[in-house]
Amino acid sequence: MRDEVRMMMLELLKQEIFNASSVHGEGREARAKIAEARNAVAEMAGTSSDHVIFTSSASEAANLALTPHYLHGKHEIKFAKAFVSAIEHPCVLSGGRFGSENIEYLKVDSEGVIDLNALKVAMAPFKAVYDALEDKNDPSYQPPFVAVMLANNETGVVEPVYEVAEIVHETGGFLLVDAVQGAGKLILDIESLEADALLLSAHKIGGPQGVGALILKSTAYKPYPLVRGGGQENHHRAGTENVLAIAGFGKAAKIAMDEFAEVNERIVELRNALELALVQSLDNNQSDLLVFAQTAKRLGNTLCFALKGLNAETALIGFDLAGIAISSGSACSSGKVKSSHVLKAMEVEDDLAQCALRISLGWNTQKEDVDGFINAWSSQVKRLYEAA
Amino acid sequence: MRDEVRMMMLELLKQEIFNASSVHGEGREARAKIAEARNAVAEMAGTSSDHVIFTSSASEAANLALTPHYLHGKHEIKFAKAFVSAIEHPCVLSGGRFGSENIEYLKVDSEGVIDLNALKVAMAPFKAVYDALEDKNDPSYQPPFVAVMLANNETGVVEPVYEVAEIVHETGGFLLVDAVQGAGKLILDIESLEADALLLSAHKIGGPQGVGALILKSTAYKPYPLVRGGGQENHHRAGTENVLAIAGFGKAAKIAMDEFAEVNERIVELRNALELALVQSLDNNQSDLLVFAQTAKRLGNTLCFALKGLNAETALIGFDLAGIAISSGSACSSGKVKSSHVLKAMEVEDDLAQCALRISLGWNTQKEDVDGFINAWSSQVKRLYEAA
Repeated sequence: MRDEVRMMMLELLKQEIFNASSVHGEGREARAKIAEARNAVAEMAGTSSDHVIFTSSASEAANLALTPHYLHGKHEIKFAKAFVSAIEHPCVLSGGRFGSENIEYLKVDSEGVIDLNALKVAMAPFKAVYDALEDKNDPSYQPPFVAVMLANNETGVVEPVYEVAEIVHETGGFLLVDAVQGAGKLILDIESLEADALLLSAHKIGGPQGVGALILKSTAYKPYPLVRGGGQENHHRAGTENVLAIAGFGKAAKIAMDEFAEVNERIVELRNALELALVQSLDNNQSDLLVFAQTAKRLGNTLCFALKGLNAETALIGFDLAGIAISSGSACSSGKVKSSHVLKAMEVEDDLAQCALRISLGWNTQKEDVDGFINAWSSQVKRLYEAA
Repeated sequence: MRDEVRMMMLELLKQEIFNASSVHGEGREARAKIAEARNAVAEMAGTSSDHVIFTSSASEAANLALTPHYLHGKHEIKFAKAFVSAIEHPCVLSGGRFGSENIEYLKVDSEGVIDLNALKVAMAPFKAVYDALEDKNDPSYQPPFVAVMLANNETGVVEPVYEVAEIVHETGGFLLVDAVQGAGKLILDIESLEADALLLSAHKIGGPQGVGALILKSTAYKPYPLVRGGGQENHHRAGTENVLAIAGFGKAAKIAMDEFAEVNERIVELRNALELALVQSLDNNQSDLLVFAQTAKRLGNTLCFALKGLNAETALIGFDLAGIAISSGSACSSGKVKSSHVLKAMEVEDDLAQCALRISLGWNTQKEDVDGFINAWSSQVKRLYEAA
């Protein structure tokens, strides 16, 4: 978490935090804190505050968004199917409230970039029907719901969201973009991305755990609520608001915007230095190293790679003993290392996928951290080749 | 929030809080914090820790529980209908994932106590089918799902949960009990209550906002997840855990158990003194005052009353100016005063319901707070009768 966020939350936690839905004065104060955070998060996403729905996590926001049932203006709209890219985070990949028979997966290429031709083929039947509609709002038409992430959490690969949006909108369809990993590292602008909805998570931009958001491009679209039975979040999501976490999210969004250029420039340099040092540490064995999505557009802070013969689980234990926290695959199950569905979708062979390691550099990562990593890495590499 | 909870959370927030699902050492520390909290909450509910599912609120827990689709052991079970008492909190009243055509409301009497005879009548068709079943686990049988709260949040009335459970279980049905308001004030024991599931909220027992729990009597019952796409909470609920809030919940549960007897004895005395002072302040106009559910079994900390002619909205403004935070109805919409569905279910006339005020005493309420309230109340009463 960012220090400024922590300081602000510590100050807030020293006082009594009231129910933001209460009519009394203290309730109004809590509402003002939420409103301030909502403005900051809205600004980060290039929209206004009434387009922001706070949830308890990006996973909840994904499950809120991924439903066949929406209101569009005053009309009910039903989406026929969900098309989700094969490299989505599990919370999107699961398809939310779409029945499993109505979920299809979109192919990516070997770099993990979505296959736009395959998307066009999947959209073609919808486009044909939509083109023929006299009334584009014909309630009997069931458009597609598409989910493609802005940047992948494992490889850092950046997806061509705008191009995807063009194809989807030619069918009257809806595009959900998981921007959790891209936030703070790419400029988020829901308007220019042409996404219909974005997912955000506070703890990925230096905010606290326990809060995320669904951002809607148009307030005319209203997903059928996931958590019902209360008027909070403009009737989008019931439950007493977590004022502390929401305020932390707002603060983190503000800082991420303020420091955007400076941090990203520094981090991409560190990442590139790290990548170079990795390669150089291998001397004559450089061909054993594979950096995933190396030639694609990638986030500046992410590095996903595998060294043939160095099993990820073994490597993680070594790094953990050296006091360095890195990940294999994604850290989203209960402490288990699973082989990555992302690498599988990229058709990486199983043997190599078992060796995949992932490094994420944060705004607070320093040159010494990179040096420390390279030291720990070098001794593992040495052990590996000596044992061979 | 309780001071001890705040202190513990402040200490925790000073450090970096890692992802509890990560395999590295810091992830394990976060998992240990969650495990400790889970033990405390389980103990409070009279069960073991693997029966506790943490959620972001009791509302989310209600929506998780209220689904027609459960696994029961290895078999799918489908509940035919949800029967919810008419005085439930809106998050239960909405029926969660039951379609509106499959939700029925259970009557209460004029004190707000559930009508056991009406319940028996509603259950009779199920009981007849269930009695005739040779195999009580026959998968074609669709049992009823019943939700009755332990104690009402507006009137404090305590429901005869055990008696309800007996009637429900004679049909093979499932009983969900909203224990949010009863926790810390009544002994919670899921076994002796015979409830199949309990709802809890941290911020109602002096813990933080943003965390609640669903407690299952038997781990054989598994509701179809609400938030999908991650293995957290033993596959019951996806999303990165809010370690800070969960730890705070655990601490609050521990303290609530430790101080149970002492606090409750003191609070019930204060409440009774307050009730008496209210009546006495009215001199010759005592018959204008109505204390709701006065003759029923009530929580020791709750007082719901109405003074004829003193509109709740007017009164709230007066108390707010005097620095006293009380509520009309329940504080669960966006700062609006709505007339209470609980009082409506008790067949309280609209004119009187508009005057209903609700006082909740906390573990930290002192005699001076009660005196302050009575002072502010007396000047409002004086103004009312002088104006008349």
